[in-house]
Amino acid sequence: MTKKISSAMDVAKKANVSQSTVSRVFTPGASVSEKAKRKVLQAAEELGYRPNALARGLITKKTGMVGLAMKDIQNPFYHEILGMFSEKLRKRGYTVLFVYTENEEIQQEEINHFLEYNVEGVIVTDALLSSKVVTRLHDNNIPITLFNRYDKHLSCNSVYCDNIRASKEIASYLYAQGCEDIVFITGKINTSTSRDRQLGFTSYLKNKGIDAAILEGDYTYEKSYHVTNEYIKNNRIPDAIFGANDITALGALDALKNNHIQVPQETIVIGFDDIKMASWPSHALSTWAQPIEQMVNETIDLMLSEINRSKPRKVTLNGTFIHRKTTR
Amino acid sequence: MTKKISSAMDVAKKANVSQSTVSRVFTPGASVSEKAKRKVLQAAEELGYRPNALARGLITKKTGMVGLAMKDIQNPFYHEILGMFSEKLRKRGYTVLFVYTENEEIQQEEINHFLEYNVEGVIVTDALLSSKVVTRLHDNNIPITLFNRYDKHLSCNSVYCDNIRASKEIASYLYAQGCEDIVFITGKINTSTSRDRQLGFTSYLKNKGIDAAILEGDYTYEKSYHVTNEYIKNNRIPDAIFGANDITALGALDALKNNHIQVPQETIVIGFDDIKMASWPSHALSTWAQPIEQMVNETIDLMLSEINRSKPRKVTLNGTFIHRKTTR
Repeated sequence: MTKKISSAMDVAKKANVSQSTVSRVFTPGASVSEKAKRKVLQAAEELGYRPNALARGLITKKTGMVGLAMKDIQNPFYHEILGMFSEKLRKRGYTVLFVYTENEEIQQEEINHFLEYNVEGVIVTDALLSSKVVTRLHDNNIPITLFNRYDKHLSCNSVYCDNIRASKEIASYLYAQGCEDIVFITGKINTSTSRDRQLGFTSYLKNKGIDAAILEGDYTYEKSYHVTNEYIKNNRIPDAIFGANDITALGALDALKNNHIQVPQETIVIGFDDIKMASWPSHALSTWAQPIEQMVNETIDLMLSEINRSKPRKVTLNGTFIHRKTTR
Repeated sequence: MTKKISSAMDVAKKANVSQSTVSRVFTPGASVSEKAKRKVLQAAEELGYRPNALARGLITKKTGMVGLAMKDIQNPFYHEILGMFSEKLRKRGYTVLFVYTENEEIQQEEINHFLEYNVEGVIVTDALLSSKVVTRLHDNNIPITLFNRYDKHLSCNSVYCDNIRASKEIASYLYAQGCEDIVFITGKINTSTSRDRQLGFTSYLKNKGIDAAILEGDYTYEKSYHVTNEYIKNNRIPDAIFGANDITALGALDALKNNHIQVPQETIVIGFDDIKMASWPSHALSTWAQPIEQMVNETIDLMLSEINRSKPRKVTLNGTFIHRKTTR
């Protein structure tokens, strides 16, 4: 059933351009006029031509593939991110090679494919990286960009929200509301996001003479629901709870509701991320909106410029405090 | 900074096996003993050897890549699926080339990469396919498997839950509870999942002399919340609402709560999928659990057997009715 496969020469002839123009149209990042591009794509479409990316990748070392490694497939925050990366990279001529890691730390075996396929760059969202894996990728000239986190021990690009500043602003809001008995529920404690949110929050309050209670969460609804429940059993009802992400805050919110504690009248609840369901009426969660579109754009820009051999850089962005019905 | 790259010959020498054994270890689906595999992988690890998948792909036509196209990145159901596919395919030696489509129907441009990279198979979850795209893939000998849906006009493998049977069982439960005033909220009306769930549900009730009211949803929380709100304004409080998926049922549930209607005392609510948050105490949604792990396994098996040139097949699976707090 296989049809005759058209060649780049057929396309060049039909579009009335040179073969090298055809080749540039199908090479990510290559310079070509919009007009020529349109003519070539139309001719290619009509002829059913497809360039062989594998052959091109072997010759030009430009495979047009970007590796994306993710861990917390349960957190809606990262789903939105994945969709955005896929779409924006495609528009720039790249395709996503996706790896979900089930381990706390990315294993060599899991990213072997990134090496085998000569990806042009690797984006890592929430999974942890050992310096061994980073060295292995760098030895193969594959740049890595960390999304939504940084690791001072690793020589990588990083794009993240200024979590310290954001959580200071949240703390200052609660202080202005007269809250004194304040709880922070951590995320995974080995992540920069959780550490920085805790640091900004507690240091601001400490300066005002307030010691926030720290409950250990792990960025899951279940853990947060559990630790909030336990806390309420053994302590006074707190004035406010700040969860290290929205899922954490939603777990706390449900535990409060389950104990018939009125939000926000008795306790204020604030999350972080502004995932879509934070806006659902059943939650109406006040939260910090990360500028995710800008973060994704910056990540792609950094990665492509690293592909062009610049030095690793860190990009820090801000965001916005969104007040819904769990703040006053 | 680039290190000397080790060759397959170096690995063969170190592992004391033939070069062809080394090659088989790194070729998906090739036969090799566990003992030889262990020796080769250990030697490869020590030498930092990585096979060049692009070169291998050109020669053997086995690229070890599987294309996965997805649309509804907002539905948590598909996140769980994506993680599962990535993990299970990796364990069988394949990597996922991921495409998120923002359009209702997959565009040629969006899957061009699947063709360029010679993926060994394509899995399509919720995005729609034109027969033109299917023909294009088949012309290139790339088999397609539809996950969680079927399309009788397309010649593809399909793996899906028996939605008609499941929704009949839900209808029979409601009938046994004495419900008469019953609402069905559709998903996207051009999907087989929504059509079949509606068909099974309404045909069972029709047989019992009950005409279910049909509200048009689109598998989003927002639309379902809106149509339920409108319905309640203009009609009696229904005895039961069945949403075409969990997100739809959660939108209806919140609209009911917002109108101070007691669930399940006044109205029963049932969803479909059993996404993780259906079990959260704030929702405690009764729902139909699709056997997703089995569905993912069957999809991979079908795809790999199609790669080995069998004929397209359809696999229909069942699932389980999960009772939480929105049923009596």
